[in-house]
Amino acid sequence: MGSEAARAAQVVRVRGQEANTASDWLAIERPLEIRARAGGGTRVVSTTMRTPGQDRALVAGFLFAEGVIANAGDLLALETVSEDAVVVELPAAALAALEATRRPFVTTGACGVCGRASMEGLQGPRDLGPTGAAESGPCGGFTVSATVIHGLPAALREAQATFDRTGGLHAAGLFTAGGALRAVHEDVGRHNAVDKLVGTLLLADGLPAVDAVLMVSGRASFELVQKAAAAGIPVMVAVGAPSSLAVEIAEAAGLTLVGFAREQRFNVYAGPHRVSGI
Amino acid sequence: MGSEAARAAQVVRVRGQEANTASDWLAIERPLEIRARAGGGTRVVSTTMRTPGQDRALVAGFLFAEGVIANAGDLLALETVSEDAVVVELPAAALAALEATRRPFVTTGACGVCGRASMEGLQGPRDLGPTGAAESGPCGGFTVSATVIHGLPAALREAQATFDRTGGLHAAGLFTAGGALRAVHEDVGRHNAVDKLVGTLLLADGLPAVDAVLMVSGRASFELVQKAAAAGIPVMVAVGAPSSLAVEIAEAAGLTLVGFAREQRFNVYAGPHRVSGI
Repeated sequence: MGSEAARAAQVVRVRGQEANTASDWLAIERPLEIRARAGGGTRVVSTTMRTPGQDRALVAGFLFAEGVIANAGDLLALETVSEDAVVVELPAAALAALEATRRPFVTTGACGVCGRASMEGLQGPRDLGPTGAAESGPCGGFTVSATVIHGLPAALREAQATFDRTGGLHAAGLFTAGGALRAVHEDVGRHNAVDKLVGTLLLADGLPAVDAVLMVSGRASFELVQKAAAAGIPVMVAVGAPSSLAVEIAEAAGLTLVGFAREQRFNVYAGPHRVSGI
Repeated sequence: MGSEAARAAQVVRVRGQEANTASDWLAIERPLEIRARAGGGTRVVSTTMRTPGQDRALVAGFLFAEGVIANAGDLLALETVSEDAVVVELPAAALAALEATRRPFVTTGACGVCGRASMEGLQGPRDLGPTGAAESGPCGGFTVSATVIHGLPAALREAQATFDRTGGLHAAGLFTAGGALRAVHEDVGRHNAVDKLVGTLLLADGLPAVDAVLMVSGRASFELVQKAAAAGIPVMVAVGAPSSLAVEIAEAAGLTLVGFAREQRFNVYAGPHRVSGI
């Protein structure tokens, strides 16, 4: 079914002035067509590059992040019809929302607003969900200890090492407040890894994920923060740096954003009240 | 003019269990509107997220990478009209090409084919340019020594350190075969950094850049390889891993692709004949 995430390749490996031919693994990047069923047939509504695997979850997470669907019930059908195509069937209103999201010309780059004709709706077609749903009640809010956060990068790397032989895949891991791994997903595209994770939760009726921590292997782009907030995830931790817009969106959404998590250090860019033990 | 690449922010810095409030720098990520002049007015044809700075070069490089323009002469006008908007004026054929590139629904992710309704034209609206233009003649082809390649990561980091206080910017540097830095550009989006670099060359009538090496700070996505090939650059070096599609496009374009360049090591994924001294 072509759902492998890596393929072998011959490379010339150079160490200093020494070179030899060696076998290496490449992360696979290949287009996925999303087709919508409408009017008795199907038509391609989107094509995205991704690492094969969890294609249905990817499509579900993507449609959720775009505000096209609100829950798994909105997916009247979600079928893998070939190794690089998924067919969705949507209620009329959702299909209309999908159509309404059509954007003109697209610029390149890792960008969720690319191609939108104006900045209206930068916050996305759905309002950023409340992230504090778990925080009412007498027990106080959802918190994560500094000790747990210090342990997340290694836990994510360990989980990823199981899958990633290429060094070329981004990972998104979902953890409990105690630091236990609930799920990990990988992709050459960091946004896809989060879409796969959120889509898996959605298909299992696990949203909003108000008692979970999202850990991502790369930088914290504004789009990842948007996706986490939309999924109700209250705390996001990144190995790398956040951008200015990522911090602004985290603040607006009430999400706790941690960056540069490595070697017993991290910075809290928004929502420090959810970090305990410091 | 708001063209700064970073802004100060207060963060909670945690080391082990110790926390203190500190000032930090965030890479700025903000939308740029590309407006086309047509019919006596202007209208927005694209919005892209980018780090402010070199906006004209970014737009020029983007339009070149998309095959909308072939050289600086196709830019009848290219004006920064506000801190977040650039107006372009194009010949009728180029404007038509821009219109023809309009794509339906866009998926998220770091992806140049996102939103294309099918995979037709994955290789881009322009054929990948020949990268061997400098290779004819009695002197043999363009080559780069392993010693020079070993030195590029540090040279790029050094050039970037001048600008990047955030740890959040990708860099794209252009080097001579001898390892001398010709130009460096930065952006939160790796594709933008390359577009800025190629756009600067284009505006200076410096394309194709057949005697240069492109060094990028992150992974080698297929899109960066496409952009390098379109600019005629024969050798591309990445700190990180290439994807499968990046290698396939490099092979198809005849481009030399080096990955995992760090600590006196690298792997050659395509075109090893241009690497000398090993």
